[in-house]
Amino acid sequence: MVGITANPGSGNSKAPQPSSLVGVMGSIGLSGKVNGMVYTAFSDTLAQQVAEKILGGSASVQDVSDVVAELTNMITGNLKSQLCDMGFNCSLSIPSVVRGDDIQVSAKTASISVKNEYTLEGCPDTLVVQVFAALEH
Amino acid sequence: MVGITANPGSGNSKAPQPSSLVGVMGSIGLSGKVNGMVYTAFSDTLAQQVAEKILGGSASVQDVSDVVAELTNMITGNLKSQLCDMGFNCSLSIPSVVRGDDIQVSAKTASISVKNEYTLEGCPDTLVVQVFAALEH
Repeated sequence: MVGITANPGSGNSKAPQPSSLVGVMGSIGLSGKVNGMVYTAFSDTLAQQVAEKILGGSASVQDVSDVVAELTNMITGNLKSQLCDMGFNCSLSIPSVVRGDDIQVSAKTASISVKNEYTLEGCPDTLVVQVFAALEH
Repeated sequence: MVGITANPGSGNSKAPQPSSLVGVMGSIGLSGKVNGMVYTAFSDTLAQQVAEKILGGSASVQDVSDVVAELTNMITGNLKSQLCDMGFNCSLSIPSVVRGDDIQVSAKTASISVKNEYTLEGCPDTLVVQVFAALEH
């Protein structure tokens, strides 16, 4: 991922709802043979570190939001590609960025709720990815 | 809307980003000839009032989230229908619900940022709807 190695955790394929997330969150909707919503959550420190690493210098609040949006787009694009290979074609909405403390996200109509944490090289905080999805019948 | 009259405000067709929202927020992605993200924001009081009105009695935290998700689905479905009539066919992701204090949402790739407030009959707080969108070229 943009020159940063991300190591996945063991994941939780039955992540409880609502899911608690903190910091700078990216979100993108999926629609098609799979409908869903992907949330990525970077702690403020992690978002700042990653943005500075990518931009090669200081990063403003806007820069950090842009980097989080772009990384969320890349992560969800990768997921879309894998879903497509499995026969679940879908298209993506635009990425939006949500900032706040102690954010709770849920999606009751999602039969699938998967959460995983990724450790990024050289960063102490983890990146959390929460996917809510429902397969088309 | 489910027996509750909603009166729109004058709206802001160039709503600044990031947009500040509070309380219980619904969100849904749009993808197709228009790509975007719709956020609805109910204050805690408004969400509770509307849920109790719809359910005809007391409403738990989960009930309130369900009602906000369903209303967001209805509002976005209505928008989708209008966009479709204008030639911008699109499909919707599933609704998700975000709770938190002082939430900031933004979508840099959205050339369209529209915000409006709706007054619901018998409720002092307003419902805020923020739409981020980009038209397909």
